Amino acid sequence: MASTAEQPKTHDFAGDEHQHHEFSPILSPEALAKIPTEHSTTSNGAVSHKTSSTLRKTRSALGLHPDAPIAEEDDVHERQQLLWSKVKVVLREPFAEFWGVVIMILFGDGSVAQVLLSTGQTTAPGGNGFGAYQSISWGWGLGVMLGIYVAGDSGAYLNPAITFSNCLYRQLPWRRFPMYFIAQVLGGFVGSGIVYANYISAIDWFEGGHGIRTVPPAPKATAGIFCTYPQPFVTKASQFFSEFIASTILMFVIFALKDPSNNGVGKSDKWFPLALFFLIFGLGACFGWETGYAINLCRDFGPRLMSFAVGYPSEVWSAGGYYFWIPMVAPFCGCAFGGFLYDLFIFTGPSPINTPWLGLKHLFFPRYALKARRERHRKAKAEGLV
Amino acid sequence: MASTAEQPKTHDFAGDEHQHHEFSPILSPEALAKIPTEHSTTSNGAVSHKTSSTLRKTRSALGLHPDAPIAEEDDVHERQQLLWSKVKVVLREPFAEFWGVVIMILFGDGSVAQVLLSTGQTTAPGGNGFGAYQSISWGWGLGVMLGIYVAGDSGAYLNPAITFSNCLYRQLPWRRFPMYFIAQVLGGFVGSGIVYANYISAIDWFEGGHGIRTVPPAPKATAGIFCTYPQPFVTKASQFFSEFIASTILMFVIFALKDPSNNGVGKSDKWFPLALFFLIFGLGACFGWETGYAINLCRDFGPRLMSFAVGYPSEVWSAGGYYFWIPMVAPFCGCAFGGFLYDLFIFTGPSPINTPWLGLKHLFFPRYALKARRERHRKAKAEGLV
Amino acid sequence: MASTAEQPKTHDFAGDEHQHHEFSPILSPEALAKIPTEHSTTSNGAVSHKTSSTLRKTRSALGLHPDAPIAEEDDVHERQQLLWSKVKVVLREPFAEFWGVVIMILFGDGSVAQVLLSTGQTTAPGGNGFGAYQSISWGWGLGVMLGIYVAGDSGAYLNPAITFSNCLYRQLPWRRFPMYFIAQVLGGFVGSGIVYANYISAIDWFEGGHGIRTVPPAPKATAGIFCTYPQPFVTKASQFFSEFIASTILMFVIFALKDPSNNGVGKSDKWFPLALFFLIFGLGACFGWETGYAINLCRDFGPRLMSFAVGYPSEVWSAGGYYFWIPMVAPFCGCAFGGFLYDLFIFTGPSPINTPWLGLKHLFFPRYALKARRERHRKAKAEGLV
Amino acid sequence: MASTAEQPKTHDFAGDEHQHHEFSPILSPEALAKIPTEHSTTSNGAVSHKTSSTLRKTRSALGLHPDAPIAEEDDVHERQQLLWSKVKVVLREPFAEFWGVVIMILFGDGSVAQVLLSTGQTTAPGGNGFGAYQSISWGWGLGVMLGIYVAGDSGAYLNPAITFSNCLYRQLPWRRFPMYFIAQVLGGFVGSGIVYANYISAIDWFEGGHGIRTVPPAPKATAGIFCTYPQPFVTKASQFFSEFIASTILMFVIFALKDPSNNGVGKSDKWFPLALFFLIFGLGACFGWETGYAINLCRDFGPRLMSFAVGYPSEVWSAGGYYFWIPMVAPFCGCAFGGFLYDLFIFTGPSPINTPWLGLKHLFFPRYALKARRERHRKAKAEGLV
Repeated sequence: MASTAEQPKTHDFAGDEHQHHEFSPILSPEALAKIPTEHSTTSNGAVSHKTSSTLRKTRSALGLHPDAPIAEEDDVHERQQLLWSKVKVVLREPFAEFWGVVIMILFGDGSVAQVLLSTGQTTAPGGNGFGAYQSISWGWGLGVMLGIYVAGDSGAYLNPAITFSNCLYRQLPWRRFPMYFIAQVLGGFVGSGIVYANYISAIDWFEGGHGIRTVPPAPKATAGIFCTYPQPFVTKASQFFSEFIASTILMFVIFALKDPSNNGVGKSDKWFPLALFFLIFGLGACFGWETGYAINLCRDFGPRLMSFAVGYPSEVWSAGGYYFWIPMVAPFCGCAFGGFLYDLFIFTGPSPINTPWLGLKHLFFPRYALKARRERHRKAKAEGLV
Repeated sequence: MASTAEQPKTHDFAGDEHQHHEFSPILSPEALAKIPTEHSTTSNGAVSHKTSSTLRKTRSALGLHPDAPIAEEDDVHERQQLLWSKVKVVLREPFAEFWGVVIMILFGDGSVAQVLLSTGQTTAPGGNGFGAYQSISWGWGLGVMLGIYVAGDSGAYLNPAITFSNCLYRQLPWRRFPMYFIAQVLGGFVGSGIVYANYISAIDWFEGGHGIRTVPPAPKATAGIFCTYPQPFVTKASQFFSEFIASTILMFVIFALKDPSNNGVGKSDKWFPLALFFLIFGLGACFGWETGYAINLCRDFGPRLMSFAVGYPSEVWSAGGYYFWIPMVAPFCGCAFGGFLYDLFIFTGPSPINTPWLGLKHLFFPRYALKARRERHRKAKAEGLV
Repeated sequence: MASTAEQPKTHDFAGDEHQHHEFSPILSPEALAKIPTEHSTTSNGAVSHKTSSTLRKTRSALGLHPDAPIAEEDDVHERQQLLWSKVKVVLREPFAEFWGVVIMILFGDGSVAQVLLSTGQTTAPGGNGFGAYQSISWGWGLGVMLGIYVAGDSGAYLNPAITFSNCLYRQLPWRRFPMYFIAQVLGGFVGSGIVYANYISAIDWFEGGHGIRTVPPAPKATAGIFCTYPQPFVTKASQFFSEFIASTILMFVIFALKDPSNNGVGKSDKWFPLALFFLIFGLGACFGWETGYAINLCRDFGPRLMSFAVGYPSEVWSAGGYYFWIPMVAPFCGCAFGGFLYDLFIFTGPSPINTPWLGLKHLFFPRYALKARRERHRKAKAEGLV
Repeated sequence: MASTAEQPKTHDFAGDEHQHHEFSPILSPEALAKIPTEHSTTSNGAVSHKTSSTLRKTRSALGLHPDAPIAEEDDVHERQQLLWSKVKVVLREPFAEFWGVVIMILFGDGSVAQVLLSTGQTTAPGGNGFGAYQSISWGWGLGVMLGIYVAGDSGAYLNPAITFSNCLYRQLPWRRFPMYFIAQVLGGFVGSGIVYANYISAIDWFEGGHGIRTVPPAPKATAGIFCTYPQPFVTKASQFFSEFIASTILMFVIFALKDPSNNGVGKSDKWFPLALFFLIFGLGACFGWETGYAINLCRDFGPRLMSFAVGYPSEVWSAGGYYFWIPMVAPFCGCAFGGFLYDLFIFTGPSPINTPWLGLKHLFFPRYALKARRERHRKAKAEGLV
């Protein structure tokens, strides 16, 4: 396609960038198919003509956009001869998500570790431990903020449920999901492992003996450093609702912050990481008690697996009435609902909610959905993106 | 009018945007009438020619500006065929205010709930509950900040008293007030309802039994989560003064932050949400003890109604010597006074205070006021805005 | 003067704006005299041709720049007919300083009042009072930040010692000093008076009886709400040094933040208020214990006078070994030293320190100083500024 | 060289500024040699033609770039006649680093002093001392932030390990290192000395007698104000790991924040100081317990030397099993590793890691490294930089 040759694509982390395009009205599947799901300009105007066809195929097979989000001057022919540089190009977004999640977990789990293990220590300056509950709000808030800075090249979702909502409502291709998911969960596993390694002697000291590892509600339990355990009085329904509502708020506000047609939000993304700090801090200070505001599968399941692997007993799974599945499932439901609410009431850009029957026509008339899907596939093929 | 046809209007959320216009001197009612109370450019330069005449009439009947603040590319013909999209266009500003207030209340009331209900819990990391009084300053501060991001398309007043002051001093048409008021109070009701739903099992646990609900100064009262109750030693006059002075500061600083001729303030609005975080945080840390800094009818009355509806006893109204009316009335007085002070001493733009007799000529010479009013009406009609 | 007619002046709040000019090298008094101490562009490019000659004379008599820092469109002929508008133009900078200091004191003293009076109250959410020492750091930090936003049109010094240093090192004319000083001290008096009025019933309750007012180190003293009293173990020398060093840091960092040739600082002033929040917060958290970090005559003397006026006993003056003079004198010494250090080691723009003998030639060779002074006066006269 | 004459150099603080250049691909030593390690534009576009050849030689002898980072208008001929102005030009970067570190240490050590010495004081507002552990996170975070503002003209490393990593991965010439190192350590010594002078009477009071000075784990030890001492239960390996991992995170995130090709980071440096506040706050809240997060030789060794000099016993060296060498060595290892990780997984610009064998070819084939080195030397000579 001639126009494609003139406008080679570089990256496709949906969300904000998509919205800078002029969207055609979304009414018919034909129109829907015209939405530029794969777009082209890097933020500094440079475009890459160079990604070799082998790399493109490999990336495409992994579910990523054929072209890596790398500025042209950094992606030259010679560099591509280096094996590791090739790997780096192929796995650019997964690497970004992975390290973003690692940074987030390091600060988040690290703050819980420091506050929990030093509880009431009288030798601390101030005489009452090295931090208070609020330090944990700080830790997760700034962990997410710095993680977003680190993971800029992948869209910085840092949360499978947010990737999920972007697939659902913001035209992020579904085939991106698995690779992102793997990178995020791995990041949670590795990040919490580093925290464990750092605090291993302190955990021994706190639990009262080398190798003793207990899970809440044991009195000296340290498993709560890594993943969340609910308060004992909270019913199963309240557990789910608490995670659900926090995830709903998370997605609703993120969609507002990423909505360029919303006059309350700066046109640039510069304020986004700071706003996320306040958002996550707020969720911790306001909805963080009952279930520990996991609101993120990779932040809860990854570290839970890690803690089980390094020797915590099987109560990591059974505690709280096999609570572990709630922070895996509720964030997806909550984020989907939060995105739904935002698109239903405020968003005016292209979203399934802004199509006939609030998008349900796609559900109840499979032919209609199939037609829209085929249109998009045809278009993607024409652009050489399969 | 030819010039109107060339400059179609899109939105009119007064305050900052009005002030970007070149104002003519305000001295005579004729001059006053020339002030562009209804203005036109969307922030990205796009203008909407498309809002159908039915929609315009409906919006006008609701007291809103005939044209919705929606960017042209998002408001095309086809979309307008969808029933829900029409509703969305008609109720754009009420929806924005509603959700802005919901987000504000979720974080604000949520922070009080978490701190109050977990008071002194020794199993918390740090051993002393899941937050302290300062968490509440954080909650309200960042709730307002994020609410402003969400409610950008309506002006993000989030407070009837602030809407009121903008009508009084900043040429926001009075007919906008009722619709904004309804949306704001509803937002308070719904937002606090969600907080109640989230913490219902924790409230049962804290109060000491299923369905027990008490109001301060009962020892285990939880009604204070939703709306404000004064300290017992504060006299009625001090109650009123405390709410009054906090509202005065609120309005004074907001007018300073929105004053484009004030050299201390950036020309863009990007810093506004963050500055509001500090302002609300400060009011909570400095004027939040005696009466709980309601400073907002919709933040206090909405949740109070909700708490009464879900089963709190009638003390929600009678507590503190029927205190409930103070956070309904004092914010209006305080914000009006704060705006008056700012316009009297600092503001040099168009304000009734900057007219003869500090605007009192309008009061004492009805003919003068009538003349100014008729001028404005005539102008509005000419622009097809009635 | 032809060039003056073409470049009419509007405002002259020194500091940052001065530095945007291209300075000529400072070596000889002639060169020094060429520095544009009175400058012209308003930040939005508008200039005022209109300030009437009567107003100019009145302003000049008060020590202010003949032209008020008001954008042209806000300073039209008709408005000038209104008496109050004339007053507003004449007293623009004093009004700005006054209200800036009022806002600063409201939040600063308000935070001390709330924390002190509610110490240990178990009915608070969290069970331990309505704030902690850190709330006071927040209060003063954000009070200064919001005060700067409010007082943008006067330079927002909010502190006589900082005005003093700007006269000394940054060519702010000395005749500005008295008017600014009066406005600042009045602001301190009024601001603390409002805090007293707001907390009067709480003070009665805390002191243990109507009208009882005590001064530290009395066990239930409340005088510490308004002005600073030193810790009992601190020697006089340490008292002075503590105020001195905090003022030095204050001025050193402010000069760095206002230095446009310093590559660490953004060229715009947008970050300045936020950076000041951190600076003041830091002084409170790091140098706020021994003497209460007054670092500001108007913040300490104004409220001290107010507290004496409303009935606190004469210990407000005698406490701490007649400590009251230290926060009056030390900030001037400290700020002068801080400015000296910055100019000596880092500043490369026009400063007396960057002249022969580090500016001491002016001191030891009166003829040299006189010559420079006469040059500047002649130039000012030529521009019609006397 | 003609082109050099046309493009005279002014400053060379590597890191961000280097990266704004268009880098040639790094594959061969020849290409590597072409990297503009010494660059030219000052941030406001001005360039200095004036630095005299004597000054250039002196600066070069000190290991600094021959041209000082001073805007042309500030570096005129006449000024250069003044002895002190010459010194200021010669020592520009060392002065900047020195004062940046002084500011950082003043706030950092100051916050520890205030919290530690006032622990549990019941006369404080709030009744529990003048700060809590979190104040220390604030102190170090904002100290670094303000230090970066002050030290803008030197690159604001404020940490020998960060300078080291910039030499290793970002083409900062190694000959810069010694001068920076000296300035930084001196800054640590002087800054902590000022804190000691300020709190000397409080330290006497806290230790229980004039001149008594003890080191942790003594019950009333105050040596912990100035430098770090590990928790007693932490093994030597954990001590090292804790400092190592915190330094790794520090460098990894700083490289991300300074990477212009990372889409998560704003193109301007304006957000950098604020992001560093959050980063340092986070390290204090999450990795600050076991060893006190020195992560910086000059922040730990400088104050340790000072405390020994003013009379603390020799336990300052022997405490914690001669722990003192760990915060000297571990930060270098950690920062080197953090930079390695960032360059390995994310950075696509010019870095040794992005050369054959991840840069190890330079290690194992000395001839290859020598060739690259000679190329760079030849180029530097041609530009008159030796």
